[in-house]
This record gives sequence, structure tokens and C-alpha cells, in this order.
Amino acid sequence: MKRILYMTPLLGLAMSVSAWAGEAAITPAANAAAIELVQSHADYLWTLVAACLVFFMQAGFALVETGFTRAKNAVNILMKNLMDFSIGSLVFWAVGFGLMFGASASGWFGTSGFFLSDFSPEGDPWVLAFWMFQVVFCATAATIVSGAMAERTKFIGYIAYSIVLSALIYPVFGSWAWGSLFNGGGWLEGFGFIDFAGSTVVHSVGGWAALAGAIVLGPRMGKYAKDGTARAIPGHNIPLAALGVFILWLGWFGFNPGSTTVADKSIAMIFVNTNLAAATGAVFAMIVSWLKFGKPEISMSLNGALAGLVGITAGCANVSPTSSIIIGAIAGVLVVFSVLFFDKIKVDDPVGAVSVHGVCGAWGTLAAGIFNMGGTSASIIGVQLLGMGTCFAWTFSMAFVMFKLIDKTIGLRVSPEEEAEGLDFSEHGGNAYPDFSVSAYAQK
Amino acid sequence: MKRILYMTPLLGLAMSVSAWAGEAAITPAANAAAIELVQSHADYLWTLVAACLVFFMQAGFALVETGFTRAKNAVNILMKNLMDFSIGSLVFWAVGFGLMFGASASGWFGTSGFFLSDFSPEGDPWVLAFWMFQVVFCATAATIVSGAMAERTKFIGYIAYSIVLSALIYPVFGSWAWGSLFNGGGWLEGFGFIDFAGSTVVHSVGGWAALAGAIVLGPRMGKYAKDGTARAIPGHNIPLAALGVFILWLGWFGFNPGSTTVADKSIAMIFVNTNLAAATGAVFAMIVSWLKFGKPEISMSLNGALAGLVGITAGCANVSPTSSIIIGAIAGVLVVFSVLFFDKIKVDDPVGAVSVHGVCGAWGTLAAGIFNMGGTSASIIGVQLLGMGTCFAWTFSMAFVMFKLIDKTIGLRVSPEEEAEGLDFSEHGGNAYPDFSVSAYAQK
Amino acid sequence: MKRILYMTPLLGLAMSVSAWAGEAAITPAANAAAIELVQSHADYLWTLVAACLVFFMQAGFALVETGFTRAKNAVNILMKNLMDFSIGSLVFWAVGFGLMFGASASGWFGTSGFFLSDFSPEGDPWVLAFWMFQVVFCATAATIVSGAMAERTKFIGYIAYSIVLSALIYPVFGSWAWGSLFNGGGWLEGFGFIDFAGSTVVHSVGGWAALAGAIVLGPRMGKYAKDGTARAIPGHNIPLAALGVFILWLGWFGFNPGSTTVADKSIAMIFVNTNLAAATGAVFAMIVSWLKFGKPEISMSLNGALAGLVGITAGCANVSPTSSIIIGAIAGVLVVFSVLFFDKIKVDDPVGAVSVHGVCGAWGTLAAGIFNMGGTSASIIGVQLLGMGTCFAWTFSMAFVMFKLIDKTIGLRVSPEEEAEGLDFSEHGGNAYPDFSVSAYAQK
Repeated sequence: MKRILYMTPLLGLAMSVSAWAGEAAITPAANAAAIELVQSHADYLWTLVAACLVFFMQAGFALVETGFTRAKNAVNILMKNLMDFSIGSLVFWAVGFGLMFGASASGWFGTSGFFLSDFSPEGDPWVLAFWMFQVVFCATAATIVSGAMAERTKFIGYIAYSIVLSALIYPVFGSWAWGSLFNGGGWLEGFGFIDFAGSTVVHSVGGWAALAGAIVLGPRMGKYAKDGTARAIPGHNIPLAALGVFILWLGWFGFNPGSTTVADKSIAMIFVNTNLAAATGAVFAMIVSWLKFGKPEISMSLNGALAGLVGITAGCANVSPTSSIIIGAIAGVLVVFSVLFFDKIKVDDPVGAVSVHGVCGAWGTLAAGIFNMGGTSASIIGVQLLGMGTCFAWTFSMAFVMFKLIDKTIGLRVSPEEEAEGLDFSEHGGNAYPDFSVSAYAQK
Repeated sequence: MKRILYMTPLLGLAMSVSAWAGEAAITPAANAAAIELVQSHADYLWTLVAACLVFFMQAGFALVETGFTRAKNAVNILMKNLMDFSIGSLVFWAVGFGLMFGASASGWFGTSGFFLSDFSPEGDPWVLAFWMFQVVFCATAATIVSGAMAERTKFIGYIAYSIVLSALIYPVFGSWAWGSLFNGGGWLEGFGFIDFAGSTVVHSVGGWAALAGAIVLGPRMGKYAKDGTARAIPGHNIPLAALGVFILWLGWFGFNPGSTTVADKSIAMIFVNTNLAAATGAVFAMIVSWLKFGKPEISMSLNGALAGLVGITAGCANVSPTSSIIIGAIAGVLVVFSVLFFDKIKVDDPVGAVSVHGVCGAWGTLAAGIFNMGGTSASIIGVQLLGMGTCFAWTFSMAFVMFKLIDKTIGLRVSPEEEAEGLDFSEHGGNAYPDFSVSAYAQK
Repeated sequence: MKRILYMTPLLGLAMSVSAWAGEAAITPAANAAAIELVQSHADYLWTLVAACLVFFMQAGFALVETGFTRAKNAVNILMKNLMDFSIGSLVFWAVGFGLMFGASASGWFGTSGFFLSDFSPEGDPWVLAFWMFQVVFCATAATIVSGAMAERTKFIGYIAYSIVLSALIYPVFGSWAWGSLFNGGGWLEGFGFIDFAGSTVVHSVGGWAALAGAIVLGPRMGKYAKDGTARAIPGHNIPLAALGVFILWLGWFGFNPGSTTVADKSIAMIFVNTNLAAATGAVFAMIVSWLKFGKPEISMSLNGALAGLVGITAGCANVSPTSSIIIGAIAGVLVVFSVLFFDKIKVDDPVGAVSVHGVCGAWGTLAAGIFNMGGTSASIIGVQLLGMGTCFAWTFSMAFVMFKLIDKTIGLRVSPEEEAEGLDFSEHGGNAYPDFSVSAYAQK
């Protein structure tokens, strides 16, 4: 560490300048090259710090999903989240990144850059910074599904899903919307599809895969009474869930502004839009829950903040702060009614992931067209609808088939006995809280 | 995202340079303009990353307040913290920011920039970066009060308070000390008042409003025995409280050094001062608790760290590292005796917010004058005392009247029955920990 | 704050340029100086933001250690972690930093810079930025030991240890490997010892001190049955432990890439290597636990992630991403067998700190030589082995003697009665969870 210390700051740049200018002479050309270099250092710094914030969202998802479900399944959810990111990192390194950003002949997916083979120690390390930022996005899409399938999914089956989403479903759709690192980019992008940070590419992909998973699995035991009325199964640790939402909100400040992958002034508006939409989402979800249930309900309020964040993700860079408030408000209202709707049609989503990420992701993508600062048009809206529809068609159908195959082969759902005693014991031989005595209620 | 990828780093700056220099020719003037631009990118980056750290303090406050109070009120505290920031963001966007930083004819408060109207897509986005940094400060002041009023406050009454503080009490005092974005600044600043990051502007404002709230509310049921002796009501989740303190300590590295809103070398000393004061505060509070109670007490030690952080906030940029150790040590001792004092006079502050933020905020403001590296004087101390006194007079009186009005109108305190069964159920229809059985003690 | 606001960004840099160039004229020389200055601002920014991430690791360690031990000792562990950093900051300020980085006549340790005396307000503030980054490293080494000595150590004895490690054991070894701020550096560095971010300097030092502490203390009551078989004592709060691991993983993105202390493109590969090793470590530890115990075990999987992180710390800047996967995989396998080994030889390490930090730190140091991108050789491997051996010899022997001395003087272990009722009550007069009823199991 010492040597580097001495290099700071003079020698380091002196070397860089000469490296650029070919000699140490201080000329306008050498200076211009050095300025480019310093700006590129700021771009690396911002992209990688933003990647840190997005990485931390993994902890946020883990806490939200754990807090909103029962104590007897906490270990299982934490393991799913840990492995979504751990296995996902390896899968995205080996396959996903190449499919999403590799050179593409067909235009349907990339076919180079597998195993980070586009990187060489002598080459431009930008591919590594960009990979780091992309891998945390891929893991976000994967982890969204975990909550909707909580408390009844076989661990091995979940891992199989996680690999397929990270290796195939997410990267292929991503290549259509965000194109490729080395060629002209995907066809949706070609149409002018607006999804700056991934309301559709990340959140709807996760949400629609979650919908397929929840449908194939079926509801948790005891979720619906004989007469079909839904029974509330409250989360076991609300402080952890609330902490998870604060962490996700924080992480979104990397997710949205970091998607510039450039350190410039444009990140300021993206920060403000992200924050205003989240705040409005929380407030409006609280108000709706207050009106509908008679009391300001915390799980709805927390999901409202997430709904606002998902809603502003597509348009965070091309709508005004005032528009972001409208987008967040609608997302906050939408998420409550969406949760009630899926409950009504007996799609058991323990944490509301389908509503937050699928439905509000679609809303945000539409909103990015409607509130576009540059003006909107039927064709802009049309392209947004095309992207939303394509995402649903591709993701839901692929995920549905995948979950059916997993169910028929290695198995997707645990036995009723295992579900009753909790997945922590049956799947992991563990207990999240051995020192605390369990309430009568939780025994059910 | 792809196109931006290609822009990194060359094209991006090339465009910027030409944008500045009016043409692409590489001249010393064009280079100088490009250098300014790159530095401004670093300033945006630092200010917004610091805003992320300060935002995360919301989670820290939520955990400290939840952990230091009873399980039956956890949902209520989390909702208050979530809404302090969510509603506060909207109120500060609509009203507070304009009052605090808008153009001011009277010099008493700003009258422009409401609803971020000073921002236009063509204009300088700095106002957005600055707003983002300021809104998290406003929310910090608001959230401080939540802990002192915990376990007995009506939710609707708390929301009314939160709106008034974010819209009026905080921004108006802030405009006196930190002036305005567009004109000569506030009158306290004119006198040379030193409060770099807000020992007074943020923490004392929160602390004195908390004092008013705790007085108007009165103590929790069972806090004082018939004979007047105070009864300890221990917090229900010390690991969450400790995590909250670590998060707050982390957030303070954005709070203090970020207040430069410039990425330069001056942030290094502010980091070191902030850390040394926090560390010393924790150590000295532990020692005092050990001497007074016979054992090293954790809640005092945790509050000691916060006391040190609050204490160094005013002077973090104008005192030496050695001075910051003295400031933190005194804050750590002060907070213990202050907590005992308020307990003695029957001001029931469940988390010690008045002592940590009000009392140590005042101490830090005085200390910024006493330990000023440029030397001190009677007039410097006088101005610091003027600022401290003005803050108390304005905040306490405004808050006291406000809380009285809320009490007489929509109501400030829940019924004894609701307080006994816990606010989670009565106010939110929730339960923070349904799967765990409650100890006999907690039933009280 | 206002005045600084106006300085952003133009005036700030204009002043700096003139400060460098001696006049405001825009010349290539003045521009070159300004470019150096802007780069240095980026270096300060990155080093200090990285320090924030590493600081946050304190919270990660606190949660991992608390979650993996029993509820009745949670307050004690949190206090130990809080004081490791608080007391450690003061000790490293007063003594440690000078010993590690001060000017050295002997070459065995530094003898200047105590009490940050190398800093003057007129001087270069880099020493402060560097101190901030180093103090969080020192605290990491100290905190590692806390977990291995959990649930039976006297608090006052632990504090004595913490002071000695931060003041003497860590800084002296550090000066051999990372040299000194003002002279030619330590002798190990002179041989070409590779330990970029501290697999040996930080993690093995912590791990071998932890081994000495666990041996001197002896196992927890009831850990080993009469027949010598080890009994599992499960952690009481797995969600907190998992959150702790996510926080540590996040913090490592400051720990490894931040060790450049320069904002340049080299941090990208370090990020990728760090992430891939952590992910592979978690996956392989899970697989091994699955094969050995029949189920994918969460504490092993979480420790696997940490093992991968510790393993890549030495070589993160000089091995390829593919190599980092191999390094992480081996670390993930190694940690499981190491935990079982120490259990077998009756070294009671409640959280596996010796295996994660000591053993995997040694593996990572060796691996940095084996997988060196510049090629390896017998002499490179030899120097790595020399560094590993020196670290063990110095740290274990110093720590063993220290713990024996503490044991004979102020005492190192609590009484059986205190251990049975829990350290929270006996040592701190506290209770981490007063509102929850304790399970029959936890009574033991």
C-alpha cells in the first residue's frame, strides 16, 4: 500500500499524462488527454460506488422478504437471497453477461464475452467496471422472485430457477432493451424504447417470473379458507422489513443515478426524482390503506415506497421532479389495489413482489413515455407498450415453462409436513431463533 | 444504458469541452474550462454520495428508537420514521427549501424556489444536488423528535407535527444560520455564527422540539412511581439499537464532510474529527456509566457515541483532531448527566433524544467557538451563544405552541387503554413480532 | 454552508489553480497543476468513501458475532465491538499509527507521527485521509478476535487485549509488511511480500490472536460432553448474522479496491475479483456442507462468503478474475474443514473466526503468490510463506503471552455462574431482549 501512497496524487497522474501524450512535456494536447483520464477515473469511481449501493439491495430484499414472512422460514429465505447473488454472480460471469452485452450477429442475443473473455490485463478495464454494475442488476431481478415463492418452495428447485433466470431469461430480454457492448444494440432499443434503469428490464422481468412461480406453486397451506376467503399471514419481524426498505431506498440511489455509468451533472435530477417518487409512493399507499382498512398499515406503506421506486426507474432521467411525484403517487395507489387483486384471484404472493415489481414496473415504463420531458406521442407510447408486452410474453411464458419443468423433475414444492414444520428445519436443518419461544399463533 | 457506455469516458468529455469552449479546438482556455467541469462532476458526486449516507441515517434513527423502546410500539415508531422522511420530502420540496434557501427580501426567510421552481431542464442542475443534500438534513431534524415522544403519541398528531417542523420551524431557523441560495444569507451567518454541519441548525432544533413534545405529552404510564421515583423501561431490541448507532456513525461521514458540498482535501480533517469525537464520546459515556452504575452500560455507551457526533458537528471543519477528542469526551460525560437530569425532572424521553441532540448540540456549538483553530474571542463566543439562545427560543416556543394546538384539536396522546395495549395494535392494527411469545415483563 | 455553495465549482478550483500556479493566468503549466489537483480530489474522495465502507464492517462483525451466539450474551458482544472501534481509534491515533507508518530508524517500527503530530493545518492533509483509512483496518483486526472469545470473556480483560492489539501487535507487524509513511518501508515489503489489502496483515493477525485467545480461555461451559464430543450451540438470531455478512461483503468493496488509495481504473478488477471470490466461497461452502451434513447449512454458507473475501484480499490486485474464482472456491472448502478441525481439537471458536480469518487469510496470502498474473516462482512463494510464518510467530506468541498475563492479573474469564446467567446481566446489567420470553433451550 505504501508505494501507492507516494504516488498520490502527483506521480500517479504524471505517469498517466506521459502514458497518454507519449512524453512528459506539458502541452495543451497532453493536458486534454490528462483531463479525459481524470474524468474517466470519476466515471469508474461513480459506476463502482453505485454498484456497491445496488449490491446492498440484496440485503434489503433479504430483510424485506424475511420480515414479511414467518419465523420458521427465515433461514430458507436468507439462503435463497445469498445464493441468488452468489450463484448468480458465477452464472452471469460465465454466460449471462455474454448473452446480454456480447457481440451479436443475430441481434437476438450476444455471443461473445463469456467468462469475461473480453477482458485482458493489457486491455481497457472498463468491461470489468461495467460487468460489476450489471451483475448486481441481474441479481436484483433474480431475488425479486424469492419473496413471491416464499415459505413453500424446495431449495434445490429454487436454485435451478435462479440459474435459468440469471443465465437466460434476464440477459436475453436485457439484450433487446439495453443492447450489446460491442454492436448496434437490441431491437427494442432500436425502436426508441425508454427504460433508463430497468422498470421493465429488471423489475418487470423479476415480477412476471415471480407471478409464474406463485401460480405454478399454488398458495401456502392455510392461506385460503374453505370458503375461499384469504387469511392474512403476518410477517414475523417488521423492524427487519422496515430496515430492508430503507436499505432498498438507499440502494436505488445507485440503481437509478448509477445507470448513467458516467459521473456528470445529470445524476442530480435522477437522485431527486428517485427520492420524490419513493416518498410519494409511501405516502399514498399509507393514505389508501388508511381509507380502506381504517388504519395506516405499515406493510402497505413500506411496499408503497418500493412501488414508487420501481415506478420511477424507467423514467428517472427523462421526466421532471414534478412528474416523478405524480408517477410515485399512482404507483403507491396501484400497489395496494394490485396486492388485493392478486389475493382475490388466489395468487399467493407473501410479500407483494408481483405487484411492486411486475405491475409498478409496467406502470413506470408507461409513465416514462407519458411524462417524457421531450414530449410524448402515440408512437412513443406504442413503443413503451411494445416493450412492456414483449417483457411479459417472454418472461412469463419462459418462467412458466421452466417452473413446470422443475416441478416435474427435481420438484418445486416441499411436502405439506415440511411446509408445516417450516423450511428452516426441513430444508436446512436450522432454526433462525432458537433462544426465543414461539407464540401459539406461529405454531400454525 | 448502452449509448452512455460508449460515451465513457472520451466522448462524454469531448462534448463537454466543446460545450464549454464553444468549439472542439484544444486550447489552454478550453482545457481550463474542461478542468472546471471535471471538478464540478466530482463536487456533484461527493455531495450526492454524502446525501446517500445522510439518508441512511433515517434507518439508523428508526433502529435506535425502535430498539430502545418496547416491542408493542415498534410498528408505530417505524411508521413515524418512514413518514418523517416521506412526508418531509414532499413538504420540503413544496415549502421548506424555498423558505430556507429562496431569495429573501426581508432577510428573515426565503420567498422563492418553492416546488423546486428554480430548476429548469435547461438550467444548472446544482439546485437539485443541493436540494437532495438539504432534504436529508431536514428529515434528520424531524426524526429526532420521534424518539422523545415514543410510546404514547397519536399517529395523526405526530404527522401534523412533522409537517410543521419540515415546512416552517426548521427552514426558517436554517435560513438565519445558513442563509439563502440566491442572496446575502441569514442574519446569524452575518454575525459570523459557526455551525458548519448543524449542531444547532439540525440537532438542537430537533432536540428542543423534542423537549417541547415530551413536556406537552407528559410521561408514559408507569414511568414514575407514586413516590416520584423513575422506573426504567428497557428497550426491547438492543442489537437493533446498536446497529442503528453504527449506521448513524456511518451516516455522519456524509453529514459532516459532505457539508463542504465540494470534493476537496478539506474533507479529510472533517472525517478524522468526526470519528475521533464519536469514539471519545462512546468511551467516556461508558466510563461514567461504569463509575455511576457499577457496570459499563450499553445504552449510555451508544448514546455517548451519538453525543460525540452531535458535539463535533458544528466545529468539525474549524477545530483540530485533538480538540475534537476533548469535545467528544465532554459530550460523552454530558449526555449521561443530562439523561439523568431530565429523568429527575420527570421529562420522559425514552431514547434520550433531548440530551443527545439538544444539549450536546448546544455544547458542540459553543465548542466550535472555544476550540476554533483560528483562535477564539469573547465576540466569537458571544455569537455562538446568541445562535444557541435564538435556536432554543425560536424552536422551543414554536414547538410548544404547536404541540399544544395539536393536543387541543386533533389530539396528541393516545388513550390509556391504547397506550397499555401498545400503539402497534391501536394505531396501526399491526404486530411487529407475531411469531414470538411476549415475556411477562413486557405485558406491563 | 452557503459560502461554499457559491464556490461550487468555479471559485473553488480557480483559487486552487492560482494556489498552484502562483497566478491566475491560464497556461498549460497552470492547467497541468489544476489537473493534478482535481485528480488528488478524486483520490481523497475514493479513499475516504472506501474508509466509510470499511468502517461499516464494524457493524457487520457485530451482527455476525451477535447472531451466531446466544441471546444472553448479545449486549456483551455489541459492547466489545463498539469499544474495539472506539478505544481502538484513540489508541491508533495516539500510538498505533506512528508505530506502523512513522519514520523508522531501526526498520522494525516507526517512531514518529504519534497523536497525528505529522499533521499541521498548513500541511498536506493526506496524512489525515490515510489515517482514516488505516484506523478502520486496525479496528477490523481487533474485532475479529471478539467472536472467537465470545460468551465467556471478562469485559475488562477484553478491553485490555483490544488496547494491546491496536497499540502494538497489529501496527508493528503492519510496519513490516506495509512499511512506513516517511521512509523506505518494512523489511517484508523489501523482500517483495504480496499482501495488497491484508489477508495476512489484517485477517491473519486477527485470526491468530483469536486462536491464542480461544486457547487461553478454554471452551464455553457445556461445549464438550464428558465423552469429548462437541455440542452445537446454535446462534440466536440468524437474520442478523446474515445481514452482517451482507454488510461485510459490502464493506470489502472498500477494503480491497480502496487499498489503492488512488481513484484510477485499477479498482475495477479489484471489485470483480472481490465479488467473484466471495460468491464462489459461499457456493462451495454450501456444497460441502450439503455433502457432509446432508443439508445446505446457512452458517457454513455465510462463513464461506467471508472465507472467499478473506482469501482474495491479498491477491485482489495481482490475480485474474478466473483465478479469484479458484481462490474463493478453495477458501470455501477450506473454511468448513477448518471449522470442523478446530472443533475436533477442542478450540471453541463460537463464530469460526480462526478458520475464516486466520486459515483463509494464510491461504489467500499463499494464493497471491501462486496465481500472480506476472507469473510465480519458488522465491515468490518463499517470500509469501515467510510472511505467513512471521505473522503467525509474532501474533500468536505475543497474543498468547498477553492473554496469559491478562488472565493472571485482571482476569480473562468470567465465573461459571456469570457465564451461565449470561454476560449481558453479569457484565453489563442489561438484557438484549426483555420483551421476549426465552425458550427452554436457551435457559441452558
